[in-house]
Amino acid sequence: MLQQSDDLSDPRQLRALIRAGRFDGPTAGVGGDALQGNLVILPQEDAADFLRYCQQNPRPCPLLAVGAPGDPSLPTLGDGIDLRHDLPRYRVWRNGNLVGEPTDVADLWRDDLVSFVLGCSFSFEDALTRAGIPVRHQTAGRNVPMYRTSISTRPAGRFGGPLVVSMRPMPAADAIEAVRICDRFPLAHGAPVHLGDPSQIGIADLDTPDYGDPPDIRDGDLPVFWACGVTPQAAIAAARPDFAITHAPGHMLVTDIPAAQADRILTGPGDRS
Amino acid sequence: MLQQSDDLSDPRQLRALIRAGRFDGPTAGVGGDALQGNLVILPQEDAADFLRYCQQNPRPCPLLAVGAPGDPSLPTLGDGIDLRHDLPRYRVWRNGNLVGEPTDVADLWRDDLVSFVLGCSFSFEDALTRAGIPVRHQTAGRNVPMYRTSISTRPAGRFGGPLVVSMRPMPAADAIEAVRICDRFPLAHGAPVHLGDPSQIGIADLDTPDYGDPPDIRDGDLPVFWACGVTPQAAIAAARPDFAITHAPGHMLVTDIPAAQADRILTGPGDRS
Repeated sequence: MLQQSDDLSDPRQLRALIRAGRFDGPTAGVGGDALQGNLVILPQEDAADFLRYCQQNPRPCPLLAVGAPGDPSLPTLGDGIDLRHDLPRYRVWRNGNLVGEPTDVADLWRDDLVSFVLGCSFSFEDALTRAGIPVRHQTAGRNVPMYRTSISTRPAGRFGGPLVVSMRPMPAADAIEAVRICDRFPLAHGAPVHLGDPSQIGIADLDTPDYGDPPDIRDGDLPVFWACGVTPQAAIAAARPDFAITHAPGHMLVTDIPAAQADRILTGPGDRS
Repeated sequence: MLQQSDDLSDPRQLRALIRAGRFDGPTAGVGGDALQGNLVILPQEDAADFLRYCQQNPRPCPLLAVGAPGDPSLPTLGDGIDLRHDLPRYRVWRNGNLVGEPTDVADLWRDDLVSFVLGCSFSFEDALTRAGIPVRHQTAGRNVPMYRTSISTRPAGRFGGPLVVSMRPMPAADAIEAVRICDRFPLAHGAPVHLGDPSQIGIADLDTPDYGDPPDIRDGDLPVFWACGVTPQAAIAAARPDFAITHAPGHMLVTDIPAAQADRILTGPGDRS
């Protein structure tokens, strides 16, 4: 469906291709250096609690944007974004059950739907790689291992539950550098939340993650744990709202914002200090 | 010798009291929030190599200032500083042997002496305490434990040898916060150089440090290691220069610069970006 002239590294071209039904794959490695985000769409009756849940738990749920009720655009994240068409694949949930994985949700759109876009780890993994820090699950061609922890998120209404973390094993000196680097990406989960002994955060066995693939841990590696975007997904699954739309795993919203400038989202117009 | 009206938290008053022979104690806890520094004074023939050694090893040897040959003032660090009088106690070395611990070195001053002031860990320990992170050796009333490592510094002329590290044990979440905090103090040794398994940097037994007191390690603590100002002292001791003056341990130069503004030293006048 793609043509040689299509530039998948240009976020606007990529979204146009997705909207035209010519690209429906995962977004890892496309969109150039543009920030990508997780999508959550909820009816207005659940949206207020979910917004409060995100604001109380910014490490696992870094809010990039919240749409007005019924409005599928998000002008602060990109020119002409239409959330009804612009993700390559969606998941549709009714009463907590997965009922479909369409490539377009225009026919499901309602005037009371509120959209949330949350930061994801793609940005900081890129930064780690550029800094020469190995991202072992990428090298091994696996998904990152993720674990439910004994740390509780701050609940809001129906939304709550355990913090879910992703784990990346690396030598100690790299772990220190990773803290320094990831601290600059507060909208991509920020600095790690734990390192070293997994049992201190309620993880019994690193080799059996709750989500993703088992880790590739080398001699001398220290396990390093980040707050993970699966946390809000698990909170929504447990809350079983009447209706919800999310991105399909790996099929993110590609924004117009260079990942390195993501912190601009934290400030309003003319608000740079 | 002190009077009730003496304000030990004011760096200029404190240096005046020291110069007048009315204060000769350790400088921990005095001088307010002013940056303190280690002193090294060497003859010009050794100074060039030592300067290169510091510039090649900024983590253990963060240079706050270098004096002109024969000049005991350091105007960038404080108004009217005279290094011949303004430290509470000195150590004098000849051919690598300690030959005296005077409270004034005016009688030993020479036209070829070059002074170096290096950042020390006082500043970041203050910042850790303010952030609610326990500094266990302070709570226990001990000196910080320090260890020679298997990591080599980059040699320059006669100066070289192993990196010496200080160790502060703390829970993992505090260790992550400590990396973020100390990264803002590049002139006080900056972020840690290692954490976790001591054997990875050549330390066989944490309970038998090479300098300082044994550590107070609690259940669940992770050992966190910083580059240490003993590194250049050990390099000088091994190089055995004909003549050297240093501060006596714990008896630092108190500057006029608030520790939180120490990074201004890294830029020249009008050079702030």
